[in-house]
Amino acid sequence: RRSLSSPLQHHVITVIKPVFGSCSVLFDNVSSLSGVSSATPTEEMNGAGNLMDFLDEPFPDVGTYEDFHTIDWLREKSRDTDRHRKITSKSKESIWELIKSLLDAWSGWVVMLLIGLLSGTLAGVIDLAVDWMTDLKEGVCLSAFWYSHEQCCWTSNETTFDDRDKCPQWQKWAELMTGHAEGAGAYVLNYFLYILWALLFSFLAVSLVRVFAPYACGSGIPEIKTILSGFIIRGYLGKWTLLIKTVTLVLAVSSGLSLGKEGPLVHVACCCGNLFCSLFSKYSKNEGKRREVLSAAAAAGVSVAFGAPIGGVLFSLEEVSYYFPLKTLWRSFFAALVAAFTLRSINPFGNSRLVLFYVEYHTPWYMAELVPFILLGVFGGLWGTLFIRANIAWCRRRKTTQLGKYPVLEVIAITGITAVLAYPNPYTRRSTSELISELFNDCGALESSQLCDYINNPNMSRPVDDIPDRPAGPGVYNALWQLALALVFKIVITIFTFGMKIPSGLFIPSMAVGAIAGRIVGIAVEQMAYHHHDWIIFKNWCRPGADCVTPGLYAMVGAAACLGGVTRMTVSLVVIMFELTGGLEYIVPLMAAAVTSKWVADAFGKEGIYESHIQLNGYPYLDVRDEFTHRTLATDVMRPRRNDPPLAVLTQDTTTVEDVETLIKDTDYNGFPVVVSRESERLIGFVQRRDLTLAIKNARQKQDGVVSSSVVYFTEDAPQLPASNPQPLKLRRILNLSPFTVTDHTPMETVVDIFRKLGLRQCLVTRSGRLLGIITKKDVLRHMAQMMNQDPESIMFN
Amino acid sequence: RRSLSSPLQHHVITVIKPVFGSCSVLFDNVSSLSGVSSATPTEEMNGAGNLMDFLDEPFPDVGTYEDFHTIDWLREKSRDTDRHRKITSKSKESIWELIKSLLDAWSGWVVMLLIGLLSGTLAGVIDLAVDWMTDLKEGVCLSAFWYSHEQCCWTSNETTFDDRDKCPQWQKWAELMTGHAEGAGAYVLNYFLYILWALLFSFLAVSLVRVFAPYACGSGIPEIKTILSGFIIRGYLGKWTLLIKTVTLVLAVSSGLSLGKEGPLVHVACCCGNLFCSLFSKYSKNEGKRREVLSAAAAAGVSVAFGAPIGGVLFSLEEVSYYFPLKTLWRSFFAALVAAFTLRSINPFGNSRLVLFYVEYHTPWYMAELVPFILLGVFGGLWGTLFIRANIAWCRRRKTTQLGKYPVLEVIAITGITAVLAYPNPYTRRSTSELISELFNDCGALESSQLCDYINNPNMSRPVDDIPDRPAGPGVYNALWQLALALVFKIVITIFTFGMKIPSGLFIPSMAVGAIAGRIVGIAVEQMAYHHHDWIIFKNWCRPGADCVTPGLYAMVGAAACLGGVTRMTVSLVVIMFELTGGLEYIVPLMAAAVTSKWVADAFGKEGIYESHIQLNGYPYLDVRDEFTHRTLATDVMRPRRNDPPLAVLTQDTTTVEDVETLIKDTDYNGFPVVVSRESERLIGFVQRRDLTLAIKNARQKQDGVVSSSVVYFTEDAPQLPASNPQPLKLRRILNLSPFTVTDHTPMETVVDIFRKLGLRQCLVTRSGRLLGIITKKDVLRHMAQMMNQDPESIMFN
Repeated sequence: RRSLSSPLQHHVITVIKPVFGSCSVLFDNVSSLSGVSSATPTEEMNGAGNLMDFLDEPFPDVGTYEDFHTIDWLREKSRDTDRHRKITSKSKESIWELIKSLLDAWSGWVVMLLIGLLSGTLAGVIDLAVDWMTDLKEGVCLSAFWYSHEQCCWTSNETTFDDRDKCPQWQKWAELMTGHAEGAGAYVLNYFLYILWALLFSFLAVSLVRVFAPYACGSGIPEIKTILSGFIIRGYLGKWTLLIKTVTLVLAVSSGLSLGKEGPLVHVACCCGNLFCSLFSKYSKNEGKRREVLSAAAAAGVSVAFGAPIGGVLFSLEEVSYYFPLKTLWRSFFAALVAAFTLRSINPFGNSRLVLFYVEYHTPWYMAELVPFILLGVFGGLWGTLFIRANIAWCRRRKTTQLGKYPVLEVIAITGITAVLAYPNPYTRRSTSELISELFNDCGALESSQLCDYINNPNMSRPVDDIPDRPAGPGVYNALWQLALALVFKIVITIFTFGMKIPSGLFIPSMAVGAIAGRIVGIAVEQMAYHHHDWIIFKNWCRPGADCVTPGLYAMVGAAACLGGVTRMTVSLVVIMFELTGGLEYIVPLMAAAVTSKWVADAFGKEGIYESHIQLNGYPYLDVRDEFTHRTLATDVMRPRRNDPPLAVLTQDTTTVEDVETLIKDTDYNGFPVVVSRESERLIGFVQRRDLTLAIKNARQKQDGVVSSSVVYFTEDAPQLPASNPQPLKLRRILNLSPFTVTDHTPMETVVDIFRKLGLRQCLVTRSGRLLGIITKKDVLRHMAQMMNQDPESIMFN
Repeated sequence: RRSLSSPLQHHVITVIKPVFGSCSVLFDNVSSLSGVSSATPTEEMNGAGNLMDFLDEPFPDVGTYEDFHTIDWLREKSRDTDRHRKITSKSKESIWELIKSLLDAWSGWVVMLLIGLLSGTLAGVIDLAVDWMTDLKEGVCLSAFWYSHEQCCWTSNETTFDDRDKCPQWQKWAELMTGHAEGAGAYVLNYFLYILWALLFSFLAVSLVRVFAPYACGSGIPEIKTILSGFIIRGYLGKWTLLIKTVTLVLAVSSGLSLGKEGPLVHVACCCGNLFCSLFSKYSKNEGKRREVLSAAAAAGVSVAFGAPIGGVLFSLEEVSYYFPLKTLWRSFFAALVAAFTLRSINPFGNSRLVLFYVEYHTPWYMAELVPFILLGVFGGLWGTLFIRANIAWCRRRKTTQLGKYPVLEVIAITGITAVLAYPNPYTRRSTSELISELFNDCGALESSQLCDYINNPNMSRPVDDIPDRPAGPGVYNALWQLALALVFKIVITIFTFGMKIPSGLFIPSMAVGAIAGRIVGIAVEQMAYHHHDWIIFKNWCRPGADCVTPGLYAMVGAAACLGGVTRMTVSLVVIMFELTGGLEYIVPLMAAAVTSKWVADAFGKEGIYESHIQLNGYPYLDVRDEFTHRTLATDVMRPRRNDPPLAVLTQDTTTVEDVETLIKDTDYNGFPVVVSRESERLIGFVQRRDLTLAIKNARQKQDGVVSSSVVYFTEDAPQLPASNPQPLKLRRILNLSPFTVTDHTPMETVVDIFRKLGLRQCLVTRSGRLLGIITKKDVLRHMAQMMNQDPESIMFN
């Protein structure tokens, strides 16, 4: 458990200047990043808007945020209300304004529609391209080189799946080059070319990411969670990132690395959301509203990744989003549905399903089977713990050692190792989603896969979908060995793959690990039940000749358990799996495994992989789920601490421009409280550093007579001064007159709650009306991390 | 639109002393109600707990709430954290304490399991009893009188459904009494007995409600929404209410009135939740935690009502709950699943489905069909508007005129009218869920219902589930007429039925209205497509001999539209319907209808039926969805107003016991701010009226020397007074040192947001540290209602 305290400690240190991100840290430092992003996608996140434009003399950029800063949700909300109010009052003036106001009211739906269409289309294109390029590693279609293996043999006349796979139009590379399809020479040549293609794809992917869009790497979900919680990362959801991420995702998945497209698809969908936000000032100029759209986009992303619209909405609600009003729920659902239907009309898998691993089972499950299901849950939890710890340790090593300097080399090396080890094993050679699909499937009568090599009773004539349990043939035992090797390989290689400088999701690898383990357990239980149906545990439900055990269901349960252990999803996980099976029947096994896996994993550490990466990278993310249970008060957390210099404040009518400029230069606070006088310390408002800087710069340029000795007035009226005195500078309009305050006796749990629910940036601490100090979001995060380290046991009882 | 302002006006007047509830107002006034409830179920909602028991001299009941008061969510949360902290620190002392702490951590899941089991069982029992008693109105089973018609004829050898219905064991009353099954005399006798049974059932129901549990009437959802938002209504979820509501629900549904069991089932499930809360002090002593359990219970209720666990969770999230943390989401899901599986193992409908109207369609829908689907959506929206306005008008009349004095007579009269009009029409004679089930069903080859009386092509031999469109026979035209009459009847009678003094839900009647309309439209489109398949609108998708139109799907879409129009549900509605059909295919038509219906209905008035009843009854409910967009400031809303007497405050060290007692006697405020002195007006805390009363009473009894002239000290240390002075009374421990404050310049939209998100009871208004006034939840509600009345147009643009 102590090892957990270390990322937190790290977090405490890096929280002020986060180094971005799990993968982009390699591309040197933040400044070079902004160099890249300012060249291209800066405009997207540039929420320029005039908060004050109903007051006199507006100047640009007041009320916007700098990069790597936290937004103020309350202010964004009130700006949106202002905008809305203006439109509503204008709409009564003319028909045209009325139409404009109606268009404004509808723009949310239009954005959702566009997001659904574009992310569905992109998902379809990605699926098709991945399919083709994965097969390209093994061979090519002679009739049309842009056909994948399956499409190529689509029109073939062979009846069994096995023969169909060998249709003459599809040629392996060795066959094409040397004319020999079989033999050691052909095998070696195919092996070599498989590795070569894999290296080429991954080299292209990492180079594109490195040169054009460093933010396109990783799964993107930790960053999106952080952005949705109110943080600004300019360019992270830009056009350029969208383009590069889509292309490199195809390359990365096709290269055969142990990674999935699901997480990156969420990032791609969010980029689409951000893109369409820029069409409407309602969203582009308001960071709060923009995040509502992004939440819905995340739902659309999961919807197309798993073909599960409801699961997508719940994923967005449970895992990704921070502020999720009911209106967003409804719109997310709409976007998720549009995306799913767009994908379905593209029909990338040729089966009018949204995913490759959609299944329908025909046999019920029995109570006694809950025991293996729960064991799979335990396995999932342990895998989750192992994966998170090992992956975080590896990523930390990458961040802190020389290793991180050679991202391209790392990707090439891992791809090489993966390809070398994966090719000999048929279960790792193919793409991971195909593997999952085969593991999930129940063995029908016509199935020719090795996994379905059961010994059939020749006398048997039963309907196709109700085959009784049969003894396993040699093919099955062979498959079991290969699957066991594949399991070990996937477990190890995924730890090193996730976090490299290419787009990489871990839903699919996690599911693959679970599906392999589940299928092995399922076959074991099936064979036990067949050979020992007189054992007491099987007696009541498994008579000879009955179809009692479905190994495919075990694979699915295992996949759910492993995914749950890694991500700690609950409802959304079960609903996604439910949408994959399409029957309420199997929800109980899935739920049992998901619950067990979460509990087991939580016993070793509360954070899922996304939270761990957020902490590793030091993002200022205030988790909704962390409950703060320590008995500290606001006064223990606020700054200044006991021995610190006093709080930097401005007075309402005695500070000069020079004083303000010195204060801005000497400190790096984001804002300053304004008090009546230094003696009374009675708070009147709060002013943002950025606004103050802009206002003074503006005044010095445009307002005659404002000099360094001018007095800054935050009061309603500046006194009439004699002409000899320098012109006063009135700044009440940039003063926030309703800063958030708590008393020094407020328990920190309440303060945390307020920060979380209202999305504050900072909060002022008072006692009997006197200003004592300030608590920022970073102070809260730092305090929570400190408390957690002092008492790591407490997390068990939440 | 102006008519909407009237309930709001009413709301403004009654908000201070709400008269409970939509139905219980008849049983005189609140005091008589508490008379009833104090006799039996008072303990359930009595969240007694010692907030202060770690301080010196605790006394009971500090920190509890009075009936019809609002809870303070922040305080409840911090009390739970205290409790949790205590258990965690104790758990390190001994094994026994560790086990206790683990049990405490698990108690949430235990409660969920129990809720699921009990509400599933109750739903099953209700279904079985309703089935039997509905049939009892028509006849009796000779082989066993406790069999319903279907169960009675279960073992019958007849093959067609029609013949099976006439199995010899089942005898109609006339047949049993006179021996004649046919003829005018038998018809009249059956008619008469049908009415008699209906009157008997409804009389029993209204009498039981009236005598034993006045809170058992109505659907309960408006009250549960209010309770979940933090209001205390003692006894509303008591054991007695549970028992009576279950029994009278069966009676009311069986009586054939136009009402459903779905809404009341939510109330029943919440009563179960409250019952099990009392097993664990974690929930029984904390009103906040209790509400988390109730949210989950509501999900379980909908889960068994519609056989839709995911829909139930979303319903609870979207419609009922106020504060819904992610932990509750996961637990709700668990409770909903347990309930669904319990119900399924009871199998009340004998088809291993959870509801009577589960359907599977075999034909896809076509783009062109969206036009009738959207028209059905418009119909649903109009019906929703009509129903809400008419029902609210009628309920207001009942509340304000003599009519309300005779609840029993009203129920008897409506039952009589319903029975007299319903019997002659076969579609209204049967139970409403059977009607819906028939309307939803697609006509198979074996269907013998009148609605499936199509003219078959004798040459046709096709698979059973792919029957092409056929011309309608005379039975269908006959059915259309009867359905049209049934539609008018249902529309009118439901308006008068909902809100009577018996348990009554309106999901089923609303769905019935929509299903009838939908089926009529569906048959019309089908016949048009058959007879005019050369019309341009049908040409592209409906060739002769194809099965293009499924009238059952139209019925389902219509049902969704009407339910959506009345309740304004969105996601949960679509998901519930999706779970009823079990296919992603039909989600687009359902969604199109639901969206249209909501938009049409919203154009006429923003409130759904539940919100309207909440307003009618003046419950202090702050809707999460109402967006407040007016440009008012806290200073405009706070009390005291400009010409009011100054705010009633206490000073920290100059008020005497007598002063306090006078203040308590003279005012009816729920609490008082404490300031440093009347001159400086600097706020130091807030004290609750109830705590103050209890503390003084306690001190006068137990503490020697506390007399009327004793000075009350809220400071940390009372000064040492000479012995001649009366003993001071130290009350710092009941002082809330972290009262919530905003500045007078805070926009009201922010204040509303804070009230909503943090669940405040009141908020103090300050300027530069000086106390200016107070805003309570009621002030906020009143202000919102006033603003809404001034500018009713603004609701359009949310």
